[in-house]
Amino acid sequence: MELKFMLEAIRQAEKALLIDEVPIGAVIVKDGKIISRAYNQTEKTQNAVKHAEIIAIEKACKKLKSWRLDGCEIYVTAEPCPMCAGAICNARIPKVYFGTHEPKSGCAESKYPVLTDSGLNHNATFLGGIEKEACSSLLKNYFKAKRKRKTLD
Amino acid sequence: MELKFMLEAIRQAEKALLIDEVPIGAVIVKDGKIISRAYNQTEKTQNAVKHAEIIAIEKACKKLKSWRLDGCEIYVTAEPCPMCAGAICNARIPKVYFGTHEPKSGCAESKYPVLTDSGLNHNATFLGGIEKEACSSLLKNYFKAKRKRKTLD
Repeated sequence: MELKFMLEAIRQAEKALLIDEVPIGAVIVKDGKIISRAYNQTEKTQNAVKHAEIIAIEKACKKLKSWRLDGCEIYVTAEPCPMCAGAICNARIPKVYFGTHEPKSGCAESKYPVLTDSGLNHNATFLGGIEKEACSSLLKNYFKAKRKRKTLD
Repeated sequence: MELKFMLEAIRQAEKALLIDEVPIGAVIVKDGKIISRAYNQTEKTQNAVKHAEIIAIEKACKKLKSWRLDGCEIYVTAEPCPMCAGAICNARIPKVYFGTHEPKSGCAESKYPVLTDSGLNHNATFLGGIEKEACSSLLKNYFKAKRKRKTLD
């Protein structure tokens, strides 16, 4: 685990915030180098699947010209949802580092152990809680401001 | 549930088979009309997330100019994997009809109840086992032929 990669994922999440998207960011690393960066863009693209992890995986596949991301690591500011945890396994990414836990929907260890369940076809190891204060603050402040705007509407 | 929509999903799966992809097909229906059709294209696109359901969701979002697919139904030839079940919930599709069960990875009812878990943010109802013989035969024959080719290599 290298902190600088999580800090870059946080910078990506901040980009999402600037365009009023749920602030989650992700980077994919191979051989010590970032090969893709992304942030959540479901609103901008009006595409339900464009979470940070999915976009990062798609960019990495394009870069490596392969749907198999063996030997890659993904850094993401929040624990992946079922869709993204499933996508990480489908893409064969073996290592996941995430920031804040998502107690309701996280599929590393909070809700379902999608990443590590040996009954599934493919697995990843993970480490959570990296820079968790920064990662969760971004989300908390975003939702707080959103609720406030809703009250004012 | 209308059988004709599952038959169209099966036709989509057959298209996947023709280009040597895992034969799974999906269609999304709104107001009794098909608004998107897709088949698995992970090999052709070398993109790990391009399962039939994901492509169908992306096409439907584009068509409706919205990431919210409220009021839509998805027909898919196999029980959705974690990624696709998660995507269905993220896209707010409320109804899922699928063909064959996937005991190892299905996230309607086989492995994890991603579609119906009220602890998650969004849910869908589902009905499985529709045209299951046709749907599972496609998959069985595909994997059988693949194993045979591997032995001959």
